[in-house]
Amino acid sequence: MELRGQIQDIGHRARKAATTLAGVDTHVKNRALMRMADRLVESVASLQEENEKDLKRAKEKGLSSAMIDRLTLTQSVVDEMADGLREVASLPDPVGQVVRMWKRPNGLRVGRVRIPLGVIGIIYESRPNVTADAAGLCLKSGNAVILRGGSEAAHSNKAICAILQTALKKTGISVDAIQMIPMTSREAVHEMLRLEDSIDVIIPRGGEGLIRFVAENSRIPVIKHYKGVCHIFVDESADLDMAERICVNAKVQRPGVCNAMETLLVHQRVASTFLPRIAASLQESGVELRGCPETLKILPHIRKAESDDWDREYLDLILSVKVVKHMAAAIDHIQKHGSMHTESIITSHYQRAEQFLRDVNSSCVFVNASTRFSDGHQLGLGAEIGISTTKLHAFGPMGLEELTTTKFIARGDGQVRE
Amino acid sequence: MELRGQIQDIGHRARKAATTLAGVDTHVKNRALMRMADRLVESVASLQEENEKDLKRAKEKGLSSAMIDRLTLTQSVVDEMADGLREVASLPDPVGQVVRMWKRPNGLRVGRVRIPLGVIGIIYESRPNVTADAAGLCLKSGNAVILRGGSEAAHSNKAICAILQTALKKTGISVDAIQMIPMTSREAVHEMLRLEDSIDVIIPRGGEGLIRFVAENSRIPVIKHYKGVCHIFVDESADLDMAERICVNAKVQRPGVCNAMETLLVHQRVASTFLPRIAASLQESGVELRGCPETLKILPHIRKAESDDWDREYLDLILSVKVVKHMAAAIDHIQKHGSMHTESIITSHYQRAEQFLRDVNSSCVFVNASTRFSDGHQLGLGAEIGISTTKLHAFGPMGLEELTTTKFIARGDGQVRE
Repeated sequence: MELRGQIQDIGHRARKAATTLAGVDTHVKNRALMRMADRLVESVASLQEENEKDLKRAKEKGLSSAMIDRLTLTQSVVDEMADGLREVASLPDPVGQVVRMWKRPNGLRVGRVRIPLGVIGIIYESRPNVTADAAGLCLKSGNAVILRGGSEAAHSNKAICAILQTALKKTGISVDAIQMIPMTSREAVHEMLRLEDSIDVIIPRGGEGLIRFVAENSRIPVIKHYKGVCHIFVDESADLDMAERICVNAKVQRPGVCNAMETLLVHQRVASTFLPRIAASLQESGVELRGCPETLKILPHIRKAESDDWDREYLDLILSVKVVKHMAAAIDHIQKHGSMHTESIITSHYQRAEQFLRDVNSSCVFVNASTRFSDGHQLGLGAEIGISTTKLHAFGPMGLEELTTTKFIARGDGQVRE
Repeated sequence: MELRGQIQDIGHRARKAATTLAGVDTHVKNRALMRMADRLVESVASLQEENEKDLKRAKEKGLSSAMIDRLTLTQSVVDEMADGLREVASLPDPVGQVVRMWKRPNGLRVGRVRIPLGVIGIIYESRPNVTADAAGLCLKSGNAVILRGGSEAAHSNKAICAILQTALKKTGISVDAIQMIPMTSREAVHEMLRLEDSIDVIIPRGGEGLIRFVAENSRIPVIKHYKGVCHIFVDESADLDMAERICVNAKVQRPGVCNAMETLLVHQRVASTFLPRIAASLQESGVELRGCPETLKILPHIRKAESDDWDREYLDLILSVKVVKHMAAAIDHIQKHGSMHTESIITSHYQRAEQFLRDVNSSCVFVNASTRFSDGHQLGLGAEIGISTTKLHAFGPMGLEELTTTKFIARGDGQVRE
């Protein structure tokens, strides 16, 4: 069969599986998730054998040690995948939940009920653990999934997917509920992005290049976030001890992720007090600072920020620092340079806290907390399938609920329209 | 300025207006809506003058009397527009509503708050009243709107839009919150559909042709419904008096709309009793029936349904009729031929009612009620901006809430991530 036909066939089987999966009871799905977890742990040896093939190729291709690290299926990575699946089993099932129900004047009882989206397409890069994580979340939310991982993890992904499918056997859930596009060519992704009749939404997970490629080539709606240029604004009324603690956490705790702080905005009235101490703390942790002219007056030894620094997602131990006149200037800067991801204000001023929460147009807006909390687990969604920085369907971290939609139901006793 | 530049300028102004509109208090928006209503009523004479130009051209072009009807701004049409705006003023403001708030183990108080989508693009056909309706709903939900009506109503739409903008003056809301693309060329729509940085969502309202054109040419997410092929299934246990009343209502009360019944499915056990009486009732109302072979055995004088009849949205006094073996066959038929719009079961059987509600994959699923209730007003949303038969963002009738999304807020007191 030709490539197009093969990919279409995967789509048709996913659509069919989704139709029955929508009605499967929670305990059946949970049992399947637990079996998936058990099978992964039992299969560490064979998984590592397949993983070895990917690692060998990665080393031959001279991939960076960070990349090879992400690619490696250690015992603990496999255990974490299994734990992730067990955790998803323990979360409440959103499907069938009656979000609201009300009675109309004519006696019609109208409600909105959560239903799965249908078929989710996940396109991702190097980490093979996404295979199990995404499959688990889609299954629990009643969706069929079509996975397309990076070519560098092809053997590992295929092996994980095969184990998950085996675990579905005899559970009453179709094995077609979890499928993978095994072809590694870019043409295969193109064909996947044309399955508008079989896939309801595409979620790309990876670098900006991947996400732009998917967004520009997909006929299917895409839920996406390009980058996270997150800001912290230290207000004049901030508790500076707290500000220091939060800023260090937001920049240093894990600099390579999208919810790390990239730009620090400091109110001019506290700049001369706060900047020397935060600079000392951050430099102690190896952070390179790049400052605006006002910052340089206080911290003359740091590098000058260039105009493109304000738009950069460093994903590294680098921070741009700007002194602002007042909160309005901070919010303006965020509107202009932010990525609608996550911003936090450190303040002890009631009105300014409230105004920041209201006026900042990002998917996560915090007061006196680290930007690093912008994460499905940390915010209490239980799990995270991805994050959206566009407003349609979902905005911010996405959990199980964001993999569903609602339909209207109405229970009548003969109502007709006048 | 060139066309592209002019359209981009409209987009930029809308984006700017949206930024401030998001924070405008409800009573300011309500006052603006009331003024818009008053100004429309005061301006009937000048509106009708402009409308006359459209009507003259429509008659010259030989448009159908139904089309001319829809185009005509009578006193009562203008009054209805004004009443619509006043009704929107009376509805609760979704913006700022805290959907949910919870506390994390570390004390962080996390919530989800409704915010406007930003800028909505509405592309519509002949009815000029959509201009006021859509502008009112977008304003109330804190969104800027860019309207693009059909060329046949160009003078009327322009006049209505100018009145609405005048009403915004001195309210504190930017007049750029309501804008219209005045150019009537199709190229102007193409340019509008490229404003992915300025428009957050496009809602097309009109025939299938318009909607397909928009969906295929837009770089912006589109919320759409192609057609409504709505079904009623009369179960063997149905109260046949009720079934007759509902079927007549669903087919006859307003046959030209998307929530009218297009196909009647009848359980074989009641076919010989029910079909003769429903046929008599419907034929009395001038409905033409087209039957499957089983139906023809009972109603030998009606026309045979061709295979494409099951997929047709007649929007007319025509009904296709099929006898089915059992409910599962009815649901199969709906899956295959339905448009995920609205389906209703008439039954007195508890389990079958529940199963139908659960298993039918449409945006509205009813028990013992007319499909005609599939409408924002009728379901209690207060108003309707459109209907979606795709699952992303909204599914079914869309009210004010569907013109919003939520952002995460978190109130902390120094939390950092471990």
